[in-house]
Amino acid sequence: MPNPLPPGSMIGILGGGQLGRMLALAAARLGIKTHIYTDEPNAPASAVAAASTTGSFEDESTLAAFAGTVDVVTCEFENVPARALEIAGRMAPVHPPANAFATAQDRLTEKDFLRGLGIAVAEYAAVDDAKSLRDALVRVKLPAILKTRRFGYDGKGQALIRNEAEAAAALKELRGQPAVLEALVAFEREVSVIVVRGQDGELGFYDPVENVHQNGILAISRVPANIHAKCAFEARRIAGKVADALSHVGVLCVEMFQREGEAPRGEARRLIVNEIAPRVHNSGHWTIDACLVSQFENHIRAIAGWPLGDTARHSDAVMTNLIGAGVEHWRALAGEENVALHLYGKAEARPGRKMGHTTRLLPKR
Amino acid sequence: MPNPLPPGSMIGILGGGQLGRMLALAAARLGIKTHIYTDEPNAPASAVAAASTTGSFEDESTLAAFAGTVDVVTCEFENVPARALEIAGRMAPVHPPANAFATAQDRLTEKDFLRGLGIAVAEYAAVDDAKSLRDALVRVKLPAILKTRRFGYDGKGQALIRNEAEAAAALKELRGQPAVLEALVAFEREVSVIVVRGQDGELGFYDPVENVHQNGILAISRVPANIHAKCAFEARRIAGKVADALSHVGVLCVEMFQREGEAPRGEARRLIVNEIAPRVHNSGHWTIDACLVSQFENHIRAIAGWPLGDTARHSDAVMTNLIGAGVEHWRALAGEENVALHLYGKAEARPGRKMGHTTRLLPKR
Repeated sequence: MPNPLPPGSMIGILGGGQLGRMLALAAARLGIKTHIYTDEPNAPASAVAAASTTGSFEDESTLAAFAGTVDVVTCEFENVPARALEIAGRMAPVHPPANAFATAQDRLTEKDFLRGLGIAVAEYAAVDDAKSLRDALVRVKLPAILKTRRFGYDGKGQALIRNEAEAAAALKELRGQPAVLEALVAFEREVSVIVVRGQDGELGFYDPVENVHQNGILAISRVPANIHAKCAFEARRIAGKVADALSHVGVLCVEMFQREGEAPRGEARRLIVNEIAPRVHNSGHWTIDACLVSQFENHIRAIAGWPLGDTARHSDAVMTNLIGAGVEHWRALAGEENVALHLYGKAEARPGRKMGHTTRLLPKR
Repeated sequence: MPNPLPPGSMIGILGGGQLGRMLALAAARLGIKTHIYTDEPNAPASAVAAASTTGSFEDESTLAAFAGTVDVVTCEFENVPARALEIAGRMAPVHPPANAFATAQDRLTEKDFLRGLGIAVAEYAAVDDAKSLRDALVRVKLPAILKTRRFGYDGKGQALIRNEAEAAAALKELRGQPAVLEALVAFEREVSVIVVRGQDGELGFYDPVENVHQNGILAISRVPANIHAKCAFEARRIAGKVADALSHVGVLCVEMFQREGEAPRGEARRLIVNEIAPRVHNSGHWTIDACLVSQFENHIRAIAGWPLGDTARHSDAVMTNLIGAGVEHWRALAGEENVALHLYGKAEARPGRKMGHTTRLLPKR
């Protein structure tokens, strides 16, 4: 076990959104201070942190000054520039490791990494130009999805490809951005596993979650997922394998599809990994209310070198995102029984913007 | 229902200790900002609040400037000067009401108030001088406790009186401070009830707690209390009666003794009220981990005019205070199963100082 950061230490968080906010609140429970680095003024996390710096993620001197004030640096979003991590890393330890971000930031690198671990992924092929698109269309059966390799999130940068004409049009839309063509998976449900890995390699798993997306954005997470115990075990095993292979420190989320149809070689074979997020994740928000130690606190514990906290679940839970104008129902939601309301302190409810969430607790079945 | 303060509002909190800190963290969950007013620099609450002002509670212009920045003012300690509440009240609504503080700040006023409501209290008499001490010793059977009327907490300002000589010595120690002589109650256990009252008079009750004090300081709170259902009902009824009579808004704690011996007129008759705290209370810290909505969030909801949150308990719980050097065991405590660790961000572990607490969750019986 490494020497843990003592209470009173300062953790630097790159990014000031709701994930940073919930990390800062979790750190505060443990007597640990936070310093937020954000490129937007009045970021959600800044209002609950001991310190906040506003600057660009390309501004090296401001980044270095920020990192000089903290005992460890972490991130609340995955698209942090590698150079920013490098600059911060000269002043303080950075967790998770840079390779976890590098792997998750590029869909091709990510799929190659997963396949290299023997983890099932949808059929895929790199697409950079007309020639590689033709090759890809031979390897990947239609329908498929053409996705930019980098900077996609919440369904952005993706196009459904049902025929060659759509493929050509989608390639044009990319304007030269490197992409990946992925076979569309006919899935029965989406499942995710939140895993936390300590500095000594200790692993902690939350129960697999069942997710429902709407318009490419997570809408609802339910726990427990309605899957066979063997499948739940396999989902955890995959998440642990990914965390170990990346030498990850902190929380990591692995999103998976459970394929439709029969599972002739057993339930466990129905899982296909969709993507990895090397950070706390929206599909783990229920852990704040249904577990003694949340994903946010366990991320803080891991990067601070503390023992991991108990991931056991005392209740079943349904988490619902409040997106855009959905937050206007806050008053009615605040009065509902068995419901915890979380609001992120964002002033403007733009369409598609995550404004808060609710967790409905149910007795554990 | 009054018009609730919308998310994004700012709540002013008089006092910057751990209770203020936990109030600020609870407000943050709801997207509500906090501004702390504290007379100590680097107060525990300041590190998690959007704003903090350091000033004396006698500094009227600083208090007024503080209150001018917030939408509502509340307190995290009961000995706030009446004049400070008055100054703040010119700039913003203040909850709880001033009379709740006035009643709880003076042990004589408090006992007269309770007796006036028909609530059982230990035999008591005012002591201001040698003459009133003699009268008090006639009315109140020994052993008894001589307590200052004002500014006592955590067992401070109290003396055990077993005979007239001790009474005379204790009176001398008081140096003219007004006091109350209270009969010592032979009790089987100490119980407290955390009640929350909304602006519309709605009441919410947490389950009665069983408390163990050591050296006059709360050491352990257990829930559920090992009391008869009739006694639990009566404890709640008393707490509700107190909150209603004070037209209280926010959380209030009523501490009670369950008398030793037979209860010929029924279990409910064994309860005697010891004191009232018109604020969130140490014996309600377990609600953070064992309830969906904690005492801290419900205080914020009440003073903000929101619907009260669900007070139901999903687990049994044992809360243990970490006092003084007890906090040095944080690393071992962080690794225990079923235990949530809370540290208050205080730099120096002075003897008797509340540094943090743990909550052990147990399946609900």
